[in-house]
Amino acid sequence: MFKKVLIANRGEIALRIHRACKEMGIQTVAVHSTADSDAMHVRVADEAVCIGPNASADSYLNVANIIAACEVTGADAVHPGYGFLSENANFAEICGEHGIKFIGPLPEHIRMMGDKITAKETVKKLGIPVVPGSEGGVDTDEDAVRIGAEIGYPVIVKATAGGGGRGMQIVRNESDIVTAVNTCKTEAKAAFGNEEVYIEKFLEKPRHIEFQIIGDQFKNCIHLGERDCSLQRRHQKVLEEAPSPVIDMETRMRVGGIVADAMANFGYEGAGTIEFLYEDGEFFFIEMNTRIQVEHPVTEMITGIDLVREQIRVAAGKKLHYSQDMVEFHGHAMECRVNAEDPFTFMPSPGQVTQYHAPGGLNVRADSAVYSGYKIPPYYDSMVAKLIVKGYTRDGCMMRLLRSLEEYVIDGIKTTIPLHIELLHNKDFQSGDYDIHWLEKFLDAHNNPDD
Amino acid sequence: MFKKVLIANRGEIALRIHRACKEMGIQTVAVHSTADSDAMHVRVADEAVCIGPNASADSYLNVANIIAACEVTGADAVHPGYGFLSENANFAEICGEHGIKFIGPLPEHIRMMGDKITAKETVKKLGIPVVPGSEGGVDTDEDAVRIGAEIGYPVIVKATAGGGGRGMQIVRNESDIVTAVNTCKTEAKAAFGNEEVYIEKFLEKPRHIEFQIIGDQFKNCIHLGERDCSLQRRHQKVLEEAPSPVIDMETRMRVGGIVADAMANFGYEGAGTIEFLYEDGEFFFIEMNTRIQVEHPVTEMITGIDLVREQIRVAAGKKLHYSQDMVEFHGHAMECRVNAEDPFTFMPSPGQVTQYHAPGGLNVRADSAVYSGYKIPPYYDSMVAKLIVKGYTRDGCMMRLLRSLEEYVIDGIKTTIPLHIELLHNKDFQSGDYDIHWLEKFLDAHNNPDD
Repeated sequence: MFKKVLIANRGEIALRIHRACKEMGIQTVAVHSTADSDAMHVRVADEAVCIGPNASADSYLNVANIIAACEVTGADAVHPGYGFLSENANFAEICGEHGIKFIGPLPEHIRMMGDKITAKETVKKLGIPVVPGSEGGVDTDEDAVRIGAEIGYPVIVKATAGGGGRGMQIVRNESDIVTAVNTCKTEAKAAFGNEEVYIEKFLEKPRHIEFQIIGDQFKNCIHLGERDCSLQRRHQKVLEEAPSPVIDMETRMRVGGIVADAMANFGYEGAGTIEFLYEDGEFFFIEMNTRIQVEHPVTEMITGIDLVREQIRVAAGKKLHYSQDMVEFHGHAMECRVNAEDPFTFMPSPGQVTQYHAPGGLNVRADSAVYSGYKIPPYYDSMVAKLIVKGYTRDGCMMRLLRSLEEYVIDGIKTTIPLHIELLHNKDFQSGDYDIHWLEKFLDAHNNPDD
Repeated sequence: MFKKVLIANRGEIALRIHRACKEMGIQTVAVHSTADSDAMHVRVADEAVCIGPNASADSYLNVANIIAACEVTGADAVHPGYGFLSENANFAEICGEHGIKFIGPLPEHIRMMGDKITAKETVKKLGIPVVPGSEGGVDTDEDAVRIGAEIGYPVIVKATAGGGGRGMQIVRNESDIVTAVNTCKTEAKAAFGNEEVYIEKFLEKPRHIEFQIIGDQFKNCIHLGERDCSLQRRHQKVLEEAPSPVIDMETRMRVGGIVADAMANFGYEGAGTIEFLYEDGEFFFIEMNTRIQVEHPVTEMITGIDLVREQIRVAAGKKLHYSQDMVEFHGHAMECRVNAEDPFTFMPSPGQVTQYHAPGGLNVRADSAVYSGYKIPPYYDSMVAKLIVKGYTRDGCMMRLLRSLEEYVIDGIKTTIPLHIELLHNKDFQSGDYDIHWLEKFLDAHNNPDD
């Protein structure tokens, strides 16, 4: 096992990794910018090294300084957390060149999944479902009709060279497909100088559902079920839950099995997430995250499996501690991301936290690096806490979450706690009836009540 | 279900009950002494009523004022927590007379189990094992030999009128029994004017092992396994764990089954604990606690069952939510009682907590009503927090507990956290090799290192 792990991150995830290390008897090294010398991850770690000034580019993204910090402290592994260098294949490679184990997948796997087109091609070959489409331009009217029929309506016609919503048309009936393709071609030619268009399945109200997997160096890979992360604002997840209200156990085990088998064949090492759009019982691959995710605790709560511990174990060359049939799901978990922001305008609200008190009790977990008196610096991500709770049922989980949110004291700054409380009082949310567009509509309605 | 529950307690258990109520959609009323107007249970409850001055006798034990508080606020039930009025049958009766549901067993059951002799006779009839003994005086030498052989050596000869260690003798061999009985009789006669002696099984190094049960009003009763509470100082539990390191699943289910069946036949309603001394595979009843216990969270952690919620449900006349075969045990949990005391002299250390920050992370639970700036009053129990953690294994649990204790910030007062950290570094504790006398010896050795 590793003797000393350098944590190349900050905030709650740095603390999360520190905790996993200490529970395994591993020494920890914190790195920090000058803005973070009072941060909790710096206070709790066994050693701390300043790696540069405030700006992330000069500190948490400063590969040379982080490698130097490893060498100075004698760290034999680096945990990159999420964000920053966690999906930087070059950094993973440089760690390897310096004899430091990067706690994550192989650099070539990070690179492959980091490119959206390569990723989609790769997972499709591995048997993971992707959005059905024409795979190339649509030449003739007959092709348009045939492809439309193959995919099934509604479909979307998109300009290959397009973007930003231009050169796109949704088609709901076969009778409209030829006109739509030709209109798009004309628009595309005019806008981009390239008339090529392709056709893809159109999802009206998809949900964002992702599967957690973890693999070891012996081609074992298991899945830990799914998370539903459909509550998003500007593609940022706001509240996540597991299991998804719309996925039953048969589907969970079937799709999870496809994903885990695919990643075992791929030889994937470490924790990863396969993200899907989901509609009408079908899953369509979006992307793979080759790192621990912000929302990993909801999976930990319902499986009891410590994902960061497993990451460290498999990186050290151990076999997975769990086989698929040891993975059990108990209860329902939700996570609220608490940001230092106005809860409805989302204006950042950094500053000093005058009083901090996290809620407690059975199956309540607050992952945060904030403490009474801590000054939240304005330079980084605004997420300051994750409140994760588990209940015996989804309803029980929501009641516990509401109670915990109402107990949470974070004084001196604005936070998004009031938004989460409103969400929990919303009937659509309560019934699990939401998709990836729902939160934006909810916020519009909240902010413009007279519309 | 109840609409409003009055919580007749203070500190962490008042907060614990408040949380359970809020998660069930029940309004809460806090009661408090004048010393506790800033207490957290007062701050979080929906309503609060001052019931008297600092002294417990005038406030938390003041039945008239508590009943008046129920009537003023319209509370339809009272949760007594532990300590204070929780095992006061008269209070339970008076609640009933005022149409207020006492959340606990029937008054006659509280009364029966509150008397040690009646309790022992009652549970023996119900099939629960008690300490084997002569059941009355030993008259002749032949009786002494026969009874000694029946019980099995070692035995202890005790004066019926005795106490405080006088008129007692441990006998390890049959050859010594006649002399011992006669010596004891002579001593007893001289000391108490009554020569009657009885013989009981002597336990050398017993453990304290207790079973959690809960019953409903329909004669259903289940057990939730055992807790090992052998780590005690002056009969006060210091650290508890579940499962016990010395109990296997077969024993757990067998003895738990005996206890649950006995209590079902008895018609017991609510949560209760059957406490045993345990030695060499045998259980000997000590007493029954007819209330929620301080250490209930270790059971909650490994079963996932919210005991306070179940208490409230069955008190409201609901059937138990769980049948015995729904009760599963996962992992290993420990609880450290954190007292505002010097960790080794146990001198109370009340005063202002200048900074409070509880540890967090997966399977870590801090139950405490302390917050940054809170002044711990000197009038009540010194326990200020319970730190409860769960691990996949006992070793994992200890590593997580150590990490959490090291993270715990309670500044401004002395606490027993350093004692818990030393315990976790002790090899006997680590191997589970301890009995009810072990902690006193550990403390003696710690405080007198040169002896």
